[in-house]
Amino acid sequence: MAGDTVLLSATIALSARGRGRTAPNPNVGCIVLDAAGRVAGRGWTQPGGRPHAEAMALAQAGDRARGGTAYVSLEPCAHDSVRGPCCASLLVGSGVARVVVALTDPDPRTNGEGVARLRAAGIAVTVGMLEAQARAAMAGFLTRQRSRRPFVTLKLATSLDGCIALPDGSSQWITGEAARAHAHVERARHELILIGRGTLAHDRPRLDVRLPGLADRSPVRCVLSRSGAAPEGWLAVERPSDIASLPGDHLLIEGGAQTAAAFLTEDLVDRLLLYRAPILIGRGMASLADIGLIDLADAHERWRLTDERTLAPDRLEVYERMRAG
Amino acid sequence: MAGDTVLLSATIALSARGRGRTAPNPNVGCIVLDAAGRVAGRGWTQPGGRPHAEAMALAQAGDRARGGTAYVSLEPCAHDSVRGPCCASLLVGSGVARVVVALTDPDPRTNGEGVARLRAAGIAVTVGMLEAQARAAMAGFLTRQRSRRPFVTLKLATSLDGCIALPDGSSQWITGEAARAHAHVERARHELILIGRGTLAHDRPRLDVRLPGLADRSPVRCVLSRSGAAPEGWLAVERPSDIASLPGDHLLIEGGAQTAAAFLTEDLVDRLLLYRAPILIGRGMASLADIGLIDLADAHERWRLTDERTLAPDRLEVYERMRAG
Ligand SMILES: NC(=O)c1ccc[n+]([C@@H]2O[C@H](COP(=O)([O-])OP(=O)(O)OC[C@H]3O[C@@H](n4cnc5c(N)ncnc54)[C@H](OP(=O)(O)O)[C@@H]3O)[C@@H](O)[C@H]2O)c1
Ligand SMILES: NC(=O)c1ccc[n+]([C@@H]2O[C@H](COP(=O)([O-])OP(=O)(O)OC[C@H]3O[C@@H](n4cnc5c(N)ncnc54)[C@H](OP(=O)(O)O)[C@@H]3O)[C@@H](O)[C@H]2O)c1
Repeated sequence: MAGDTVLLSATIALSARGRGRTAPNPNVGCIVLDAAGRVAGRGWTQPGGRPHAEAMALAQAGDRARGGTAYVSLEPCAHDSVRGPCCASLLVGSGVARVVVALTDPDPRTNGEGVARLRAAGIAVTVGMLEAQARAAMAGFLTRQRSRRPFVTLKLATSLDGCIALPDGSSQWITGEAARAHAHVERARHELILIGRGTLAHDRPRLDVRLPGLADRSPVRCVLSRSGAAPEGWLAVERPSDIASLPGDHLLIEGGAQTAAAFLTEDLVDRLLLYRAPILIGRGMASLADIGLIDLADAHERWRLTDERTLAPDRLEVYERMRAG
Repeated sequence: MAGDTVLLSATIALSARGRGRTAPNPNVGCIVLDAAGRVAGRGWTQPGGRPHAEAMALAQAGDRARGGTAYVSLEPCAHDSVRGPCCASLLVGSGVARVVVALTDPDPRTNGEGVARLRAAGIAVTVGMLEAQARAAMAGFLTRQRSRRPFVTLKLATSLDGCIALPDGSSQWITGEAARAHAHVERARHELILIGRGTLAHDRPRLDVRLPGLADRSPVRCVLSRSGAAPEGWLAVERPSDIASLPGDHLLIEGGAQTAAAFLTEDLVDRLLLYRAPILIGRGMASLADIGLIDLADAHERWRLTDERTLAPDRLEVYERMRAG
């Protein structure tokens, strides 16, 4: 149906509400329509990973789900747990006539089994609409499934000539208030935030979310240092690859140049957040240390611009790593 | 009239045809409508500075100008020369009933006198529409009038992290074909192109316009060097301020980092052409050497984004220097 795209897109947007708070579960969205096509329930994975989006939306819909349609951003899970029946069973029990799924769940315990269960119960199932949008919304979960590590975003705040600080290290302020507020919203979308030992020693940043209503969304702080030392309450990361064992599916790296380069060198960055102020610095600190590039040809076709906006007077560009498959 | 804006905007667009070829005269545009509002003549300042735009458009229009309207991007000149009557006289003689002028001519020989002559002859004159657009189109002439030097554009082709080359100096290729073609069109819009002695020695660039049909628009080459030496056919510039005596009202600077910094330090850059490839270089050559910045606060509110576009896979941003007055 023509309305499917709009409703599924709204469902995926809903899934973003759980982003950064549902690990190890995916942040899913669900919208349930009654038989007449009116919205009867909406749900998204709750903090901690439960209730699932479908459970929440179906609980809201109650009997109105009967004969209706459920939109889900990810294939419903097919593995019952001690904490309750799986979502495929809940959907079958609800009496919905039709389910529209954006993305198949790569979790080996589901991976097609959720859809199979629905179909076996006589429910009409559409799979694979708006896949790219769903992948972007659940990038943390999907990266964990595929690469056994969090989805990594590298934030850089630079001048037009690519400097992150004056030669003496001063970087207050390169970008303006709108960019800084945006960066705090980004923090709130991450479970984990990481800086290098140099930046920790130099700046002692708080790395918390200083936005009204989002203060409780401050990510867990991590420091990269070969010494394995970390301040009280911080997690220590001795090597970039150690992020695999961090608790959370979204990691935000906020510098400095050595740390950013260390993650880029190991190809562990999935997304670049580039805040750029309309200023020139000249002799200053470069944004990146050595990333091991020897031939310019190897630098190309790795990054794709996926978003850009003005955060007056600054500009934000978002690039994502293009990976095969 | 509502149509004035559209026609004057088209007139200013026409003025761009002469850009970079009319010095020391301004590159003006002119459109003449007959009494019924049909386009009867179009003109722009010809290479070398003559004929003027008004003379060309009025010659095309002939008797059809009588009772019509003339649109001009700059106030018509009021000083007769050995090479013919001034444009104000030509307009009076043509019988047009109305003249719409974007910008008053700051040349002391005209500066309001052109408009006064038209009004004295009973012609209705509107002055001061689309001034900003006209200023941008005639920036070379206006900079020469005001600051006694060419309008200076600094081109930088960088990676996302602001590098212009690998540590060994290799910079082929950072940007792609579309960006390079665009950069050649920019060359064609300049009478003068300048590089530093380091870039000359290292790259021996041709700096010509390699686009079909525009080969004859290659700018005059200049080299910045304290030695005052220059290759055969090149002009020598010993200090940035020496550009005041160069022949031409548009100067394009193509590097390197020291040269760019030397002009920025003396606040002699009016426009930045920033071509950015979606690549990361890491340890590489920075785009700028020291520009004398000590306090970050002084870096702000100098540059304003005036244009941006995708030149796939790269991005172009154009910034202009904000100057008081
Ligand atoms: N404008 C901005 O956006 C911004 C943002 C952040 C920082 N900064 C500035 O950047 C400066 C600090 O940058 P920086 O590059 O010197 O320091 P840094 O990256 O913050 O920290 C460097 C430290 O990280 C650890 N590290 C680096 N690579 C590693 C690897 N592969 N494995 C394990 N540990 C590794 C090492 O710690 P150990 O020595 O303990 O092993 C190293 O000393 C400060 O002046 C700060 O103000 C600016
Ligand atoms: N990717 C790109 O867009 C791009 C573009 C251009 C260049 N490059 C690279 O940049 C490198 C060269 O850059 P660079 O910074 O070393 O050299 P440069 O800026 O091209 O030239 C430096 C020379 O300019 C002269 N100069 C500088 N400041 C001056 C001043 N204030 N007054 C008078 N003369 C002055 C001096 O010449 P004298 O010593 O003779 O006095 C100085 O040695 C090359 O490797 C080139 O490939 C890259």
